Amino acid sequence: MTPNQSYTRNLTLLTDYYQISMMYSHFRNKLFHKEVVFDVYFRKNPCGTGYSLFAGLEQVIEYIQNLRFTEEDIEFLAKTYKYDKEFLDYLSDFRFTGNIWSVSEGTVVFPNEPIVRIQTNILEGHLVETAILNLINHQTLIATKASRVVFAANGDPVLEFGLRRAQGPDAGVYGARAAYIAGVVGTSNVLAGKLYSIPVKGTHAHAYIQSYSSELEAFLNFAEAFPNNLILLVDTYDTLGSGVPNAIKTFQIMKEKLGDQFKNYGIRLDSGDLAYLSKVARKMLDEAGFNDAQIVASNDLDENLIRDLKLQGAKIDVWGVGTNLITSSDCPSLGGVYKLVAEKEEDQFIPKIKISENPEKITTPGCKKVVRFYNKYTKMAILDLVMLQEEEIPTYDFIAFDPINIWKKKRVKDFVAKEILIPIFENGELIYTLPSIEEIRAHAKSELSTIDDEMKRLSNPHIYHVDLSRKLWDLKYDLINKERKR
Amino acid sequence: MTPNQSYTRNLTLLTDYYQISMMYSHFRNKLFHKEVVFDVYFRKNPCGTGYSLFAGLEQVIEYIQNLRFTEEDIEFLAKTYKYDKEFLDYLSDFRFTGNIWSVSEGTVVFPNEPIVRIQTNILEGHLVETAILNLINHQTLIATKASRVVFAANGDPVLEFGLRRAQGPDAGVYGARAAYIAGVVGTSNVLAGKLYSIPVKGTHAHAYIQSYSSELEAFLNFAEAFPNNLILLVDTYDTLGSGVPNAIKTFQIMKEKLGDQFKNYGIRLDSGDLAYLSKVARKMLDEAGFNDAQIVASNDLDENLIRDLKLQGAKIDVWGVGTNLITSSDCPSLGGVYKLVAEKEEDQFIPKIKISENPEKITTPGCKKVVRFYNKYTKMAILDLVMLQEEEIPTYDFIAFDPINIWKKKRVKDFVAKEILIPIFENGELIYTLPSIEEIRAHAKSELSTIDDEMKRLSNPHIYHVDLSRKLWDLKYDLINKERKR
Repeated sequence: MTPNQSYTRNLTLLTDYYQISMMYSHFRNKLFHKEVVFDVYFRKNPCGTGYSLFAGLEQVIEYIQNLRFTEEDIEFLAKTYKYDKEFLDYLSDFRFTGNIWSVSEGTVVFPNEPIVRIQTNILEGHLVETAILNLINHQTLIATKASRVVFAANGDPVLEFGLRRAQGPDAGVYGARAAYIAGVVGTSNVLAGKLYSIPVKGTHAHAYIQSYSSELEAFLNFAEAFPNNLILLVDTYDTLGSGVPNAIKTFQIMKEKLGDQFKNYGIRLDSGDLAYLSKVARKMLDEAGFNDAQIVASNDLDENLIRDLKLQGAKIDVWGVGTNLITSSDCPSLGGVYKLVAEKEEDQFIPKIKISENPEKITTPGCKKVVRFYNKYTKMAILDLVMLQEEEIPTYDFIAFDPINIWKKKRVKDFVAKEILIPIFENGELIYTLPSIEEIRAHAKSELSTIDDEMKRLSNPHIYHVDLSRKLWDLKYDLINKERKR
Repeated sequence: MTPNQSYTRNLTLLTDYYQISMMYSHFRNKLFHKEVVFDVYFRKNPCGTGYSLFAGLEQVIEYIQNLRFTEEDIEFLAKTYKYDKEFLDYLSDFRFTGNIWSVSEGTVVFPNEPIVRIQTNILEGHLVETAILNLINHQTLIATKASRVVFAANGDPVLEFGLRRAQGPDAGVYGARAAYIAGVVGTSNVLAGKLYSIPVKGTHAHAYIQSYSSELEAFLNFAEAFPNNLILLVDTYDTLGSGVPNAIKTFQIMKEKLGDQFKNYGIRLDSGDLAYLSKVARKMLDEAGFNDAQIVASNDLDENLIRDLKLQGAKIDVWGVGTNLITSSDCPSLGGVYKLVAEKEEDQFIPKIKISENPEKITTPGCKKVVRFYNKYTKMAILDLVMLQEEEIPTYDFIAFDPINIWKKKRVKDFVAKEILIPIFENGELIYTLPSIEEIRAHAKSELSTIDDEMKRLSNPHIYHVDLSRKLWDLKYDLINKERKR
């Protein structure tokens, strides 16, 4: 049993009831072999950011591999609705048999481009929608949010401390994973640490101090247990009046005892004005000769407060970010959707469209690929082009145009091009080698280095171009006109 | 295996690393038998509401019952830090041996009163903090949010549709559970339906329509599969131009076929202006003789939009609420905390306090009970009084006072009093009989009927009184003064 398997469950029923209803209706119509293509994409980056950071694929893979209805599941469904026995038998034998393409975890992605594509029979296609969206929406959201926090910290280490306020155990565990991919250096969440080999970090709580007769006694006891990893929480009674002076006394005693072996120590501030307190505490520590004592700060931090504290010269070395990161508090959902874009008829995929009163809800039809163009000199991303699968990728200068304001044109030149969707499952078999979390994290770092800082600005960032190829644009608008004429 | 056990995991490592660090230090100091008391409480209702609805206890109980470190867990911890072998052996044999009190699920609770109390040795007390907070914070948040949505719907049924945007599988499953407790009538989440016997509900998706050559053909096929539970999604192409007319044709055909047996049918609107579209659709349905066709609405609903749509006379019978409920989008966390309030010394509990630069972060010391006073004639809740465990509950008129603005006084009379914390675990044994979800839901409904509608107002609600007994108030301020004098 790998560590992950001790946590992973069979989530076959983690789906919306209407998926089963639609499967049942299609089953009655004998459509088990009807092949369809669904795209996963989102319409807006979360948190007003200029990009999103893709995560959650590993959990999607586990989910697909564990897909099977248990006897208990079948009994439950039989009770829920009067399904035919044939349908329940079909479910008993159910396995995922289709193809899945996805961008890799840690890839920077943008609105209105497919990030996962599922090609399979229509029954399977329905069943897996909800869980795929749930897993991708959540981790992509948290990875994106965490990347903003890491950006604001501007090179300072960020720790993920949010488990107690996460929306349930999975939100804590998968959230810590997504945050680590996005660049935080560790988590307080021990289970996430074990499951995903993420460094686990932590200090101690106020309760620890309270359970000794004095703050100094508590500090000295903690120091004895952790002589080489000693971060003391200094705000249980009075930060500058007692906490910092007692921490300094503790450091002096440890220094006397251990000499140069005493290292990796500091204080944590968890209340009050962090700019003011950190500056005074820094002075006190320096004057006592503890220039290498770290100052860790926590208490309702987010990317905006970190930016503001840094602007005011706060002397904070390490940022512990909890609730606001793990819940993505100002934007707690990513609106990823899963839309039917093509259906096979007589060995050919026919593009499908959905019209809506809300124009942004109109889908882009057809089997598509996503090509990212990079400047061949700077290696920076220039634009993404969504193309029909059968189209050739441009090899020399071309004109791209905005799919809504079509007069907005851009000449793309001096580029190298890369397809970002890669094959994951083929005929139900996993054909993708899962990278390690360190590889994913390194990939995310390298991906974030290919987009301009203007796109990472915390507010009102630069908007990246995601255009449609001319052929795809024509197809889409032909289908819209055809449907409107009905 | 009960249905729940197929989903429940061993979450022993679902804790913050600092808990293990503190346990280790206490272990080295041979404090395994030191008995302590921790209170769980929150400082502010979420979402600007006037109350919170407590949920999550059942999952806390499962968590406590499953608490044991596996070999794999011990190996991981041994790698993480150079713990003594004795400590690792202690963890191998670890079981929860303490006492827990809690309010029951579905109880209305308020800021600054203990809602869970843990009395156990200090090592166990630390370990369980994080998971207890995670589970209670999440479900109490979602139950509270859902109760707001149900309140806004003012008697109309509300369905929970949020799984695809929930923050991971647990957030979807436990969130659906909390929402059902709070009064929604069903969920789209099949797994939650199975695990917790919640009615599962659903219609079909746009993709279903797209996979037939016409909308009418799709509707007729769906009708054949679900003749007695037929809600048709009418906005795939053009709501009023094609969706509603095709739905009416389908209803006519079904009515001809089934006569009076055709019932439980309607349409779902998922885009456009829901007030306008529902009013026109209602007219079209009524004119065709389908007065009993239901109109279900979904699309980014929350309690405020539901209130506004109802104010504008929207003809919506059933509200499907997704993302905003399942993530509690405008307030995605509840800030429940877990604080040391007493420690046993020579057979006596000594009250403990934590001071802070932020006054609202100062704790209320001592072993406490929470007493709710109801008007004996109207049965409405008047006020909660937090008292020391050993104090007698008043039996006749008394004066309560606000713990911050102590000049604000209130005579409490004609009351019946009830303690709201009840025993759950005693010496590690579960001594509480878990109620069924229907019992919890009925309790929540009855609880919500004991608080004034003024406290349920969506914005700026009436603030309920949670006061301290005079004896407790004196104790708290004595300890503050003592600490400040140090």
